[in-house]
Amino acid sequence: MPYATSAATARTWATDRAIDLWTIFGDDLRGLPGGEPAAPSALRVAFDALRTDGARVAVLDDAATPATPAIGPRATNVGDALRVAGPPAPEPFAVFSAMRASGVADVRRVGILAAGPRALEAGHRAGCGAIVGVVAAGPGEAAARHALVRSQPDRIIAVEELGATLAPLYGSGRAHRERVLLNPGPAVVSDRVHRAIGGPDLCHREPEYNALFGRVTAKLRRVAGVDDGWATCLLGGSGTAAMEAMTGALVRPDRRLLVCRNGTYGERLATIAARLGIGTIVVDERDTIPIDPAAVAAALDAHPDIDAVAIVAHETTTGLLNPVAEVARAADTRGVPTVVDAISAFGSEDLPLAGSGIDIVAGTSNKNLHGLPGVAFLILSPRARARTADVAPRSLYFDIRNHLHAEAQGTVPFTPPIPAIYGLEAALDELFDEGLPNRRALYRARMAVLDEAFGRLDLHPVVAPEHRSGSVRSLPLPAGIDYDDLHDTLKADGYVIYAGLGSAAATSFRVCALGALDVDVMRGFARALETALARLGYRAPIAAS
Amino acid sequence: MPYATSAATARTWATDRAIDLWTIFGDDLRGLPGGEPAAPSALRVAFDALRTDGARVAVLDDAATPATPAIGPRATNVGDALRVAGPPAPEPFAVFSAMRASGVADVRRVGILAAGPRALEAGHRAGCGAIVGVVAAGPGEAAARHALVRSQPDRIIAVEELGATLAPLYGSGRAHRERVLLNPGPAVVSDRVHRAIGGPDLCHREPEYNALFGRVTAKLRRVAGVDDGWATCLLGGSGTAAMEAMTGALVRPDRRLLVCRNGTYGERLATIAARLGIGTIVVDERDTIPIDPAAVAAALDAHPDIDAVAIVAHETTTGLLNPVAEVARAADTRGVPTVVDAISAFGSEDLPLAGSGIDIVAGTSNKNLHGLPGVAFLILSPRARARTADVAPRSLYFDIRNHLHAEAQGTVPFTPPIPAIYGLEAALDELFDEGLPNRRALYRARMAVLDEAFGRLDLHPVVAPEHRSGSVRSLPLPAGIDYDDLHDTLKADGYVIYAGLGSAAATSFRVCALGALDVDVMRGFARALETALARLGYRAPIAAS
Repeated sequence: MPYATSAATARTWATDRAIDLWTIFGDDLRGLPGGEPAAPSALRVAFDALRTDGARVAVLDDAATPATPAIGPRATNVGDALRVAGPPAPEPFAVFSAMRASGVADVRRVGILAAGPRALEAGHRAGCGAIVGVVAAGPGEAAARHALVRSQPDRIIAVEELGATLAPLYGSGRAHRERVLLNPGPAVVSDRVHRAIGGPDLCHREPEYNALFGRVTAKLRRVAGVDDGWATCLLGGSGTAAMEAMTGALVRPDRRLLVCRNGTYGERLATIAARLGIGTIVVDERDTIPIDPAAVAAALDAHPDIDAVAIVAHETTTGLLNPVAEVARAADTRGVPTVVDAISAFGSEDLPLAGSGIDIVAGTSNKNLHGLPGVAFLILSPRARARTADVAPRSLYFDIRNHLHAEAQGTVPFTPPIPAIYGLEAALDELFDEGLPNRRALYRARMAVLDEAFGRLDLHPVVAPEHRSGSVRSLPLPAGIDYDDLHDTLKADGYVIYAGLGSAAATSFRVCALGALDVDVMRGFARALETALARLGYRAPIAAS
Repeated sequence: MPYATSAATARTWATDRAIDLWTIFGDDLRGLPGGEPAAPSALRVAFDALRTDGARVAVLDDAATPATPAIGPRATNVGDALRVAGPPAPEPFAVFSAMRASGVADVRRVGILAAGPRALEAGHRAGCGAIVGVVAAGPGEAAARHALVRSQPDRIIAVEELGATLAPLYGSGRAHRERVLLNPGPAVVSDRVHRAIGGPDLCHREPEYNALFGRVTAKLRRVAGVDDGWATCLLGGSGTAAMEAMTGALVRPDRRLLVCRNGTYGERLATIAARLGIGTIVVDERDTIPIDPAAVAAALDAHPDIDAVAIVAHETTTGLLNPVAEVARAADTRGVPTVVDAISAFGSEDLPLAGSGIDIVAGTSNKNLHGLPGVAFLILSPRARARTADVAPRSLYFDIRNHLHAEAQGTVPFTPPIPAIYGLEAALDELFDEGLPNRRALYRARMAVLDEAFGRLDLHPVVAPEHRSGSVRSLPLPAGIDYDDLHDTLKADGYVIYAGLGSAAATSFRVCALGALDVDVMRGFARALETALARLGYRAPIAAS
């Protein structure tokens, strides 16, 4: 249940149960076709496993007929389950009574096991966090599963399998669970965003989609600080999709693209250009050194056929910021537009666009905007819009002219990833509620905690302080420390760090702070890192306090 | 709350409130900074608007101190709100008491308006369908919004704006709402799928993602009926993304692609090939006539440089099925692989792959698989995998070799749309629970209802019965009937139909039956269509019964 608010969050997320209270409606078990003899003992096995893990189990009896003889024997067979009286399913109130009786005060931590439509409906109405349909294995199983589909359980499990399957899915030891993600996206995002993506199914040719599209693109422009003379394309896909759309957008036939390359994503821009048949001039720099605007200017002067400059604002490889404004100014002075991969910069790094000479920025939902993965975007200046008219598209999916034409009609050319767009809108609203300056301050404060801890541990980010971004640090692995060991030790505490890229994987690791994580979470991580390194045999030259 | 189970569903969805009961914790309103004088009257306005729409309003008082003097005057100011005593926030139990007292037995239809973190937390714990943060407009508003962000309300609204904003968002007249979608995807999907997409935030370089990826790709192969010698690529994007990846995958340099074109999607394949610089031989047919396998054979014989055949299994333009198996056989006999756009066929149409000569199928989550939009896929035969080694990739995002290389390591090259993949897995599990034959029978039964109704109304699908698909019908608009009028009339009843494509938009309309819609929903639609046409002045030559 993101947001992560305190140092204790990671540990809680890493160790808690998903479901603290499991409920069954006593008379619902009649619905288990063919399961009469097998069900009680199979249920007892399952309930024993759940209780061993610390969960509670409650049998909800019909308050009007509290001692149904047909149910009595079965119910007593499920061991020391809590007995709660209440109205029968589909009413949800007996579930609430069981919560009160068991001290579980959060329906998201309540599960229901149900064999019939009425009990499943009660689980939905109660807002249960887990709604599990139960069938009996055997000849009637396929028909029983089919019959439950329209009651929309989260999953359907044979009663004989409950004992083996519930704990790995919902118990304290489950592997697939929320963790504090310190990788460079996808990030931990708030429940505001998680809830938003469940919005109504929608046809993208309806005016409700036009309205959504119009709101989201306007909000992206607001973050970018540009007016509606700028265009906004929403693309279904990852950040790389946006990079590919951007790379091919402005370079006319027989012209070339200047690519600034000082990391994996600069390299990716060059690769995309090559795949699209676009000639490149590459300005190289070492991974840890910002691109030199003078080198870009010199290359532009030497190669008048350069039609655009492409640069990565924040190289996630190392956590390096490039001098995008200076590069764009050098290009703009020479009449050349600049396109910027702002995928891990947009929303948290300083990136003024209006009047900057930057003509396209590429971004994605699931990094510093704190949305979910699935939708990326381009924001294009009026000059870029005009230029696209002279560029024969090199793709249909990434045909920017096609997108601009659709945008003018308030829509998109192809089926958009609507849930991800719902999530992006919620993330943007959250950003405005947080306040853009506060978002940036949060990023700075988190990194200050990390940098202080790294210094204390004598770990030195590969990028000099003045060039570091607000969300990523790449650090050499201390001698003798294996990345996988460090990763797994921290993961057990609830923190997910990230490997170095390519050849750096064996010798470095990355810590990234984006998403719905409060500053105190970084303090918890710093302590966990210190403990993990000590456990793995690392002794910092400077003693940790 | 999909599934749509009966003829009454569309009308219910089109007219119901999202929220039937709004709750506030009485002592929470103290949290409205600066809002002391303004809040009561603004709340009264909002509550009056909600009650006018038929919703209930409940004030939840602390059971331990039932008559808090500081709250009393405000609470009485909100009119005839239900008063309920219960434990204070963050406990959710007073919300449940209000449900009982008001006869609203579904937490998803309960909203909470809350000014402070504890009341917002209570809303989350209660599983409320709407969780709205409330602030007071004015100088303290920005700080108040910032303070509420980590409590994760669905949205934050100034109290002065509640009266104008709640009804359009949650009331019976809201525009953005669930409807019975009869467009060719995105479809209505079950809450099983809607709930699944809210799964844990996850880094795609963790083993939990490898496991998810492995499960989903295996399940796609199970639907396809192929073994794990076939490869599966998951692509972030729409069906067109999968088409583009497929179109560029198998054609070697200086060879050509044979494109079968008898509708918009065949045309799209040809456009993509042109954009990618792939020469084409086109076998054309009219929109309503299946591609002739003999014409494909003849073209292959005439052009030995053809390296692959591309065909659309189900032309969504018209609802036409192409003879994919026969075309693939003709190509296979000549040693040429066939790639199939199965986007609106996969999961519901007969499409045997193993031994068929079909080497790639492209599909997407949000059509007949009943998942949500955002993820598409390719399934590739061993022969196709081998061929890709000889094809220089024309893109990075759609570089199939790169995808196959990543798949061998259980992962994907770029950040995947994880929520959409969660949804796809839930949709596939739902399909297996339903049973593949039952899914196909559902499709047939729905279309039988529609075809019977169209016949009764003397409306004749443009495709002959023997070539019609199991999910799409394109019909001429009756003389004098305007598409927009028909669309809007049906939409008011909760049904969303779809326009014809391109030039057919003015003269035809489409009705598509995919997604979580039971057969009876089609009966409801048939009656609504008859009524709508009659209202718009259409009289069928054959009298409707």
